[in-house]
Amino acid sequence: MNNWMKNVRKVDPYVPGEQPKSLNVVKLNTNENPYPPSSAVKEVLKHASDDALRRYPDMDCTKLVQALSEFYSVKPEQIFVGVGSDDVLAMAFMTFFNSDKPILFPDVSYAFYEVWAEMLRIPYKKQALDENFRLIQSDYFQENGGIVFPNPNAPTSILEPLSFVEEIVAGNPDSVVIVDEAYIDFGGQSALSLVDRYDNVLVVQTFSKSRSLAGMRIGFCIGSPALIQAINSVKNSYNSYTMNHTALEAGAASVRDKAYFDETRNKIMETRKEAVERLAKLGFHGPEPMGNFLFVTHDRVPAEEIFRALREANIFVRYFKKPRIDNYLRITVGTPEQMEKLYAFLEEYLKER
Amino acid sequence: MNNWMKNVRKVDPYVPGEQPKSLNVVKLNTNENPYPPSSAVKEVLKHASDDALRRYPDMDCTKLVQALSEFYSVKPEQIFVGVGSDDVLAMAFMTFFNSDKPILFPDVSYAFYEVWAEMLRIPYKKQALDENFRLIQSDYFQENGGIVFPNPNAPTSILEPLSFVEEIVAGNPDSVVIVDEAYIDFGGQSALSLVDRYDNVLVVQTFSKSRSLAGMRIGFCIGSPALIQAINSVKNSYNSYTMNHTALEAGAASVRDKAYFDETRNKIMETRKEAVERLAKLGFHGPEPMGNFLFVTHDRVPAEEIFRALREANIFVRYFKKPRIDNYLRITVGTPEQMEKLYAFLEEYLKER
Repeated sequence: MNNWMKNVRKVDPYVPGEQPKSLNVVKLNTNENPYPPSSAVKEVLKHASDDALRRYPDMDCTKLVQALSEFYSVKPEQIFVGVGSDDVLAMAFMTFFNSDKPILFPDVSYAFYEVWAEMLRIPYKKQALDENFRLIQSDYFQENGGIVFPNPNAPTSILEPLSFVEEIVAGNPDSVVIVDEAYIDFGGQSALSLVDRYDNVLVVQTFSKSRSLAGMRIGFCIGSPALIQAINSVKNSYNSYTMNHTALEAGAASVRDKAYFDETRNKIMETRKEAVERLAKLGFHGPEPMGNFLFVTHDRVPAEEIFRALREANIFVRYFKKPRIDNYLRITVGTPEQMEKLYAFLEEYLKER
Repeated sequence: MNNWMKNVRKVDPYVPGEQPKSLNVVKLNTNENPYPPSSAVKEVLKHASDDALRRYPDMDCTKLVQALSEFYSVKPEQIFVGVGSDDVLAMAFMTFFNSDKPILFPDVSYAFYEVWAEMLRIPYKKQALDENFRLIQSDYFQENGGIVFPNPNAPTSILEPLSFVEEIVAGNPDSVVIVDEAYIDFGGQSALSLVDRYDNVLVVQTFSKSRSLAGMRIGFCIGSPALIQAINSVKNSYNSYTMNHTALEAGAASVRDKAYFDETRNKIMETRKEAVERLAKLGFHGPEPMGNFLFVTHDRVPAEEIFRALREANIFVRYFKKPRIDNYLRITVGTPEQMEKLYAFLEEYLKER
């Protein structure tokens, strides 16, 4: 071994969902939006100017922040944008979770929380969900160095009501509480209404799901000006210019097209509703889905077997071989056409089992 | 003060060069390229597909890595790409500089090295340049936890020969040596020829200068497969998808247009040559510039006064009010037309002084 290798940081990297390069696939495994982004996005990409490309982008991300400020009726100084919500969350962990006390998050949740805590040497305690995969609120009223949870949770798709979130925020005035709302636009009630009343809540959202822009890497968080100023300072100590020109333009154009945003998420909610019924008829059940995905188990056939059979048929869903959830599938809500292919395959497959 | 504020990470952020929003400015202050990027870049932006925008980008950045691999004749597994060279450098610091021994870098250099070291709690020792702003090679042959320096250096624009770099790399087999070559394409000899012979050298470059793509945030590093594997693991523990679709496409298109790349950098080198002569006639002198910028002092008038006068005339150059360099200006090489405006103003201004 080379001696310099001794000083290399050791990590256990997160493994994201498979991204097949073939297009001949029904891709329901990474919670992408099956619909294209607003047509305004392609329009702005067509008009990127030479000057904008050759110059450093606006480090204040003014155009995108302004659009978000208008959309969500908050002040620009309450908004921080980053390279996807992963960037926003990692920066928030770095900025706010510097206590010696453990941070708290659910045991079944977004896998990156643990990766970041390990990476940044933040002490943490995973709080077990109950037998119905619900967060146990009382678990979040103990001494802690910060709290983070997704709402709706992933991979369960379960939404907790706003009152549940508010009680945790109100009960932990000495901690920053991060509510990861990647999937909130599919029927949930956002904690954004809390940011003017509580200075310790940070609401994180993304353009990757409801705005069909996973390919552009845009996330943001909204909180009190004090929180946003702190995270901006830390971010500027790493890299002042993370949001490239096209992301800023595409993001702003997308936010300004509210009609299309509503149309798309409504379509997904309708397809989701039908999916619950159709899958139930095939013997699947799971919690009421409130994200753009379902979390289901079959009453007879093991999830891992179904996962493999689907994969062979070029239908990709997500399977986590992890304690408690290893008999569940996470299925992204696709277009009605994609879902029909899923139902048709499952119907045939389950008949033979 | 709110109690959660106690756990907020305290930082002293880097202050980048001013980015005036007015276009009525001769902007020679942030070392951007005055020429547009390759026309192939705008072409690919026009053709971004809906599927590419709504899906997560290729986390392996295959298309861009492949283009760089062909351009620089290295294997794909020797290349790591990031959100500008700041992202690449920050990730490299995080990955390779984990020793208890101090890392070494020049005292007059890229200001972010110190910011990252502070942020990541890496012990460091700044090594003073000599009286001619040259690196003193013997300073880099002491016990250390890593070495980083720009070549050409900034803000001095001084290039050290390849033999100088190789001796440092060869003399420090137990450390990772990072050569920050943001400005190498303007006449310097790159350390890329060392990466197959030394497994401890990491060469960092950027698309922001010679490829006119500061607005797209693309940087990369090339080194031994062992180095690249290590930095990729750390990066994937923060955010697997940092490079958005348009950056990958724009970057690849730009790399494949070698003719334009050569044309542009040659123009800048010619303008730079003329600038040295013209500024000398006006009473300026400085080290031989090998980046896309000059580092000059006037034989009579203090740099800060010239800086202020230029700024009032809407000509932006960079001035650092820092020990040793506070009588120097850093002037980006612009188009011949921009430079004529600079000379014309200086001629009038200096007459009256």
